[in-house]
Amino acid sequence: MQTPRRLRDLGVVVGTLPTGPLNAITDVPGVRVGQTTIATDDLNTGVTAIVPEGYSGGLPAAVAVGNGYGKLVGSTQVDELGRIETPILLTGTLSVFRVADALVTWLIERDPKATSLNPVVGETNDAFLSDIRRRPITPEHVHAALDSASTDLPAEGCAGAGTGTTALGFKAGIGTSSRTMDGGSVGAIVQSNFSGLLTVLGKPVPAVPVDADGNSCMIVVATDLPLDARQLGRLARRAVFALARVGSDYAQGSGDYAIAFTTNPTSGYQDKDLRAPFQAVTESVEEALLNSLTMARTTKGHRGNTAHAVPHHLIKAAQ
Amino acid sequence: MQTPRRLRDLGVVVGTLPTGPLNAITDVPGVRVGQTTIATDDLNTGVTAIVPEGYSGGLPAAVAVGNGYGKLVGSTQVDELGRIETPILLTGTLSVFRVADALVTWLIERDPKATSLNPVVGETNDAFLSDIRRRPITPEHVHAALDSASTDLPAEGCAGAGTGTTALGFKAGIGTSSRTMDGGSVGAIVQSNFSGLLTVLGKPVPAVPVDADGNSCMIVVATDLPLDARQLGRLARRAVFALARVGSDYAQGSGDYAIAFTTNPTSGYQDKDLRAPFQAVTESVEEALLNSLTMARTTKGHRGNTAHAVPHHLIKAAQ
Amino acid sequence: MQTPRRLRDLGVVVGTLPTGPLNAITDVPGVRVGQTTIATDDLNTGVTAIVPEGYSGGLPAAVAVGNGYGKLVGSTQVDELGRIETPILLTGTLSVFRVADALVTWLIERDPKATSLNPVVGETNDAFLSDIRRRPITPEHVHAALDSASTDLPAEGCAGAGTGTTALGFKAGIGTSSRTMDGGSVGAIVQSNFSGLLTVLGKPVPAVPVDADGNSCMIVVATDLPLDARQLGRLARRAVFALARVGSDYAQGSGDYAIAFTTNPTSGYQDKDLRAPFQAVTESVEEALLNSLTMARTTKGHRGNTAHAVPHHLIKAAQ
Amino acid sequence: MQTPRRLRDLGVVVGTLPTGPLNAITDVPGVRVGQTTIATDDLNTGVTAIVPEGYSGGLPAAVAVGNGYGKLVGSTQVDELGRIETPILLTGTLSVFRVADALVTWLIERDPKATSLNPVVGETNDAFLSDIRRRPITPEHVHAALDSASTDLPAEGCAGAGTGTTALGFKAGIGTSSRTMDGGSVGAIVQSNFSGLLTVLGKPVPAVPVDADGNSCMIVVATDLPLDARQLGRLARRAVFALARVGSDYAQGSGDYAIAFTTNPTSGYQDKDLRAPFQAVTESVEEALLNSLTMARTTKGHRGNTAHAVPHHLIKAAQ
Repeated sequence: MQTPRRLRDLGVVVGTLPTGPLNAITDVPGVRVGQTTIATDDLNTGVTAIVPEGYSGGLPAAVAVGNGYGKLVGSTQVDELGRIETPILLTGTLSVFRVADALVTWLIERDPKATSLNPVVGETNDAFLSDIRRRPITPEHVHAALDSASTDLPAEGCAGAGTGTTALGFKAGIGTSSRTMDGGSVGAIVQSNFSGLLTVLGKPVPAVPVDADGNSCMIVVATDLPLDARQLGRLARRAVFALARVGSDYAQGSGDYAIAFTTNPTSGYQDKDLRAPFQAVTESVEEALLNSLTMARTTKGHRGNTAHAVPHHLIKAAQ
Repeated sequence: MQTPRRLRDLGVVVGTLPTGPLNAITDVPGVRVGQTTIATDDLNTGVTAIVPEGYSGGLPAAVAVGNGYGKLVGSTQVDELGRIETPILLTGTLSVFRVADALVTWLIERDPKATSLNPVVGETNDAFLSDIRRRPITPEHVHAALDSASTDLPAEGCAGAGTGTTALGFKAGIGTSSRTMDGGSVGAIVQSNFSGLLTVLGKPVPAVPVDADGNSCMIVVATDLPLDARQLGRLARRAVFALARVGSDYAQGSGDYAIAFTTNPTSGYQDKDLRAPFQAVTESVEEALLNSLTMARTTKGHRGNTAHAVPHHLIKAAQ
Repeated sequence: MQTPRRLRDLGVVVGTLPTGPLNAITDVPGVRVGQTTIATDDLNTGVTAIVPEGYSGGLPAAVAVGNGYGKLVGSTQVDELGRIETPILLTGTLSVFRVADALVTWLIERDPKATSLNPVVGETNDAFLSDIRRRPITPEHVHAALDSASTDLPAEGCAGAGTGTTALGFKAGIGTSSRTMDGGSVGAIVQSNFSGLLTVLGKPVPAVPVDADGNSCMIVVATDLPLDARQLGRLARRAVFALARVGSDYAQGSGDYAIAFTTNPTSGYQDKDLRAPFQAVTESVEEALLNSLTMARTTKGHRGNTAHAVPHHLIKAAQ
Repeated sequence: MQTPRRLRDLGVVVGTLPTGPLNAITDVPGVRVGQTTIATDDLNTGVTAIVPEGYSGGLPAAVAVGNGYGKLVGSTQVDELGRIETPILLTGTLSVFRVADALVTWLIERDPKATSLNPVVGETNDAFLSDIRRRPITPEHVHAALDSASTDLPAEGCAGAGTGTTALGFKAGIGTSSRTMDGGSVGAIVQSNFSGLLTVLGKPVPAVPVDADGNSCMIVVATDLPLDARQLGRLARRAVFALARVGSDYAQGSGDYAIAFTTNPTSGYQDKDLRAPFQAVTESVEEALLNSLTMARTTKGHRGNTAHAVPHHLIKAAQ
């Protein structure tokens, strides 16, 4: 079985902007990621927590809905107030509400006065490889993800909320990437689980589809540029558009969402200067999506279903 | 202490359209309501379940956001697909996720194949009268509300999700009303918990505000007219506008949402014929809001806080 | 025939916040208004121009759509960029495009480099009193409105874009009002042309409806508070909600829009401090709407139609 | 100078669904297209009219905003009512309002009772090749486009509203394509004028950018499937997503809009059956965009600017 490798380690480079030191969302100052992975015979699922410094005071944020067939918790309040006030969690579809509830538990333990909180939790459907109806995520799993959050390179592929997901006919999961520019950086992390035709730098890499229905993609974009919520919404839409670059077919049953936030609550950035941030989003999301595939391992799961890792030689051939 | 009475029993009539037999959302064919009430020294909270026949096949529906400072679960998927696929539940703010999770439990027990569900759960903040941080709602509470759903007149005032709420300076809670017209009916149920100056048929009824912050109003509108999701969205917006008629100040901290659905999944209704349904929404929401007040009892709760029922003579004087 | 008088001069006071010196949108520093009135046997129409200082550099702005049955020019770009870059004009329905074109003419004469402009022009339908199909507005009318813009109290009632409009069964038109608070002021100007039951401080003032269909209301809100576009959107929604306070029925054929902008392009205002601005919007829009009625004169127009001014004694009786 | 040729005539096939007989939007029953082309030393602009049978009774329709930096006329009413009630016109930026006004003229001549109309007119900025500030489009140009509308294959490349536009560093313009499937067909027509890196079947075809700023893309999608407005909105979003497939960078200064309508005002189509229509939109928009390039001729225009046609051998090499 091939060793998981990141896209760049296979010699494939997306775009032209420089990456941050880790080429990960954790390159954005103040952003930590923690994950809990559940992998048994029957279960392949987990939790991925994106924990930005300063969330409790509110950080500017926005959601873009590419296709709303997904159970994104917290969206309407982010739209209204233009901010997140909690970490962002990702998990499997039917577990999303108990994960949100566990996040509330974790938050009220840390804030003795809190009587209102707007957890933001996204999901994709990992039922192909995991017994989703068991809703196996416990509060302990959630708290472990939150408590272990660090600025390290997050585990990719079969990790956290990506443990049981598949994309474009192959085993997929969590992927991350980043870009830097004058004034700041942009990082993305994805939970990939969508249909289409895998496309690497424009070259198709066909697979036998493993799970055509119920697919989705959650994308979280972080930056430390002083963007306001409206501008972050513009970034978030570019994250959705970037799905096309790796071959998403934006299926009608897909929950394709992007959440963008900044760790920098000042403002004053001009829209005319958004060219570089837009490019950074497009590049980092495309690369994160491909990392979620090249870092995944062939996985056998629920009901004996198997999702195969994309053979790296097919990726390399795309150069 | 005064006996709770419905607005019409106090001699006050809202609007000109006839009500249904019960003057309740359950007048709409196929709509049942069930509630669980939790009332102890320290807790005043609960669950209200609106259970439309045929939900599992999907019913056309839409959400209107008046002010999005609230944790409405399920909104983005309703927007995308224009339908609800579960009962609609109402509860207290911090319990919303465990209520959604309990609804999932209830649903997957009834559908052995379900691997994806979009529960719709709204909330308002009952922290003034209830120890909200304890999140006291259990799955059993939720299931009891769902299992007890009937076509009877729902309990109003201090019942279900309205057990601990206050509005316009008085004890409030659940209220319902309906209107009939050629071709069908419209019914509304509300969980009232918002600030402003109580206004009855245009006449102000001032109170000493009890809980100015963190207020909200959830409104559910049902009809059996063959409206599509876009048209139901137009109804839902009128439900939000109707809040002004009883004196809402649409506070910035308020989660003011309306969800409208039809039990009739056919279509073909013309927009030019919406005058009567719009009027029916406006009247039934206004009356439901006032019923939520006149049917409430003075309630003592968490930390010794007390919310007083509106004296009925003040309501009668508004005629 | 009664002399037009402003609401306060009839002894009716809306709300509790103090007004600005003129009780007009022109109380907001930097906001000028100019109007062209066309009143002949067959024509009752015109142009109202709201000209904020600094528009050419872009001013934060947002649009709220209460009911979108109206031809609002410029909306999508305001949504995207969160700003206006031109004066805002109001006129009659079928003239809206030639008014927008005349605004472009006026602007490119003043900016020799402009190759892209996003005029914002709203309209309501004055066909009851004006031969709307003639589209009588010329570029000269538009330019006269723009060139005459001043910080004076704008003419109300049968003036500018309100020359031919009716509301709530009476002759209506242009109305304006303002409120001041710590840190700044809020002003509103309306072009009222909508159906419903006139309500003054909660008391109904029935009329024989003159033109039940095709009605609309355009509302422009200005402030000098340092609000961003998202926050201005929250204000704009309150302006739409305020229509309910004077008895709008939000008819399905109505184009009910509010545009809010600030002359202060800095930012940093906190959402938690929005209570006073929200109240100021609600009060100033309600009063502007009533001014549009009490300042109107009985008008005879196209096809011999007549719209009657609301008798002032009915307004006074509402106290 | 190379002869303009359609993409398929260069041997490049997009996607797998069959095209209609003309591979054009006019393959959709009831859809006609007419164009007026203005090409002089200094002017390269025009009008493209999409005229669907039955527009005057209202046809289900929806708008998707990819990036709203463009002056789309008519959007809010389409959102509210879910329908178009006029032909759809495309033109150059600063002419959009006089084109809308000329459309009103044409419509009220045909409907002696019309007092309210919602023209839908899109634009992109052709200032690189055309003296846009002259606003050269007259009512006669507009009426000629409308009156000449036919079911023939529309002229592509430097025609109508595409006469002066450029995309991806090359001369571009109008392009069209269609797909058929069980139950109906889907067709697209585009006015391409956007930045990015031309990508043909995934292979980049770099150019020297000719006009980095003020770019945009208008896309019109037609079908005869019985879709409602909400479903057409889902199609329209896929049209926006398809821009990524040819290398759009979705620049912040771009007005990227898609309008989808059906000529079939019945309903009852199931969302689960949208896979084929989504694929048809994606394929036909991608091919229409490429046709807009391969059918364009090198054009010299305003201020001596030149936009070069993409060399066909570069397109062929992309296979």
